[in-house]
Amino acid sequence: MLPEKITLVEVGPRDGFQNVKEQIPTEDKISIIKGMIQAGVRQMEITSFVNPKWLAQMADAAEVAAEIHKTAPEDFRAIALAPNKRGVENAVKAGLSNVTYVLSASESHNQKNVNRPIKESLEGLADIQESFPDTHIRVSLATSFGCPFEGDVPLKNVLQILTRLYGLGIREIILCDTIGIGNPLQVQQTVRAVREQFPDLTLGLHFHDTRGMGLSNIFAGLNEGVRIYETSIGGLGGCPFAPGSAGNTATEDMLNMVSSMGIRHNIDMDTYLRTVARVKEKVSAPLTGRLSSMCRQ
Amino acid sequence: MLPEKITLVEVGPRDGFQNVKEQIPTEDKISIIKGMIQAGVRQMEITSFVNPKWLAQMADAAEVAAEIHKTAPEDFRAIALAPNKRGVENAVKAGLSNVTYVLSASESHNQKNVNRPIKESLEGLADIQESFPDTHIRVSLATSFGCPFEGDVPLKNVLQILTRLYGLGIREIILCDTIGIGNPLQVQQTVRAVREQFPDLTLGLHFHDTRGMGLSNIFAGLNEGVRIYETSIGGLGGCPFAPGSAGNTATEDMLNMVSSMGIRHNIDMDTYLRTVARVKEKVSAPLTGRLSSMCRQ
Repeated sequence: MLPEKITLVEVGPRDGFQNVKEQIPTEDKISIIKGMIQAGVRQMEITSFVNPKWLAQMADAAEVAAEIHKTAPEDFRAIALAPNKRGVENAVKAGLSNVTYVLSASESHNQKNVNRPIKESLEGLADIQESFPDTHIRVSLATSFGCPFEGDVPLKNVLQILTRLYGLGIREIILCDTIGIGNPLQVQQTVRAVREQFPDLTLGLHFHDTRGMGLSNIFAGLNEGVRIYETSIGGLGGCPFAPGSAGNTATEDMLNMVSSMGIRHNIDMDTYLRTVARVKEKVSAPLTGRLSSMCRQ
Repeated sequence: MLPEKITLVEVGPRDGFQNVKEQIPTEDKISIIKGMIQAGVRQMEITSFVNPKWLAQMADAAEVAAEIHKTAPEDFRAIALAPNKRGVENAVKAGLSNVTYVLSASESHNQKNVNRPIKESLEGLADIQESFPDTHIRVSLATSFGCPFEGDVPLKNVLQILTRLYGLGIREIILCDTIGIGNPLQVQQTVRAVREQFPDLTLGLHFHDTRGMGLSNIFAGLNEGVRIYETSIGGLGGCPFAPGSAGNTATEDMLNMVSSMGIRHNIDMDTYLRTVARVKEKVSAPLTGRLSSMCRQ
């Protein structure tokens, strides 16, 4: 039942860094990204093209993208997140051809996160696709397993939005558990329903670890044959404005679980863990991953 | 496939407290135990009868046992751990009729932990059973999923020891992942093999969370129909002499995952979480559970 191999999409430099209050020097960001590439990571959200007024941490997006574009190996897939057309435009200008567009499965979170109704996010996506036909757009669907404002998010709402996205030609979608409230049974049911309705979709999963269920949810995904997982170095991420709230599922913990079950991931753990130690040294945020606590700084 | 209900065996006052360096006042221990009983916990390892020269934290075992024996509701099952005959004798003297006897699935850990070969631990158990026919002996089999000294512990070694234990009349066994190195696939395979060979065994699982796989392993156990889980309040436990090493799977995180999947556990979460907050206040050890970071102190 379990897949033979998984694909990691590292999101630390985007979902992790964006939650760090203190500005991380651009050279440290680049050094951490390069460390992960050296470890074998071949898909990564390297930054986020958002208005720096909203998110000062990402003001160096173009600089980061340019350097990685210049130095990364050919088989490396650099991805940037963009919440709107302006962001996609800037990502394309910076040389990127893979963009994550984000919208939410719940209205109130979409409103808070990207400042408009879901309907307008979908219209915005259609417009982007028309304007940037050579850019590959993948979609992260936030709050797919629960919403901080609305609570439960019915599976039928998720499926409705997926139908719209599929209709727009989107074929790569990541279901995100933004607040780490999904459970393994829910993951099983959700993945089964999505797979049944959209068998040819490239489906990824992204679980925050707020309640410690990140790895359980990944195991549930693996049991359903899902191969693509977004995780973050050291577990960086979560909400910096909710004290004590844990962040993302840590990449190194995920890789360790996966390989202990005999599933391949093509990442060199020693090199990756050295990069975790670099994050500990350079980034002033607590790491919530378990293996990271064993890494020397 | 998932069970409708699980049984929690709380091990915080034993496996958790024993790893706290600073002496916890007996009254605080009792107050925490009572808080959990009030929350609905009905099976608990309340202390450990070991030589106080080895483990000063447990020097008040008889006092704790006497107070709980006097005040706990009738349906509460107070359990103490004992590594040898002297310990069982002291537990019985203190009024307890349920004792956890501990041995390891790997020779070197058994030697380090209880200072004798597995063979002698088994002989010691037979002697205890003869001497205390009215005492219910359950067995915790440490290092069932891996050993800090020997690495992998072959499943056939676990099954061999279970065969010996079964032959001695033991019918309640807890497979313990002492160093948190087991993975969900291994749990699935182990539980299936044990169930096939010993279908009438009362089987429990105890996972440390050192590498973040505690809840994933519990989910794997649930998928195999296992209903008994040993976990620790706040995640207290682990090895206090290995800096940064995480401890047990936190009871409150386990209860949260289980109930989010619609499985009953009969614990009142608010009362339990108030007791977690009391642990935060009274016990000078970091709590590694995820929900505990959300509890006010």
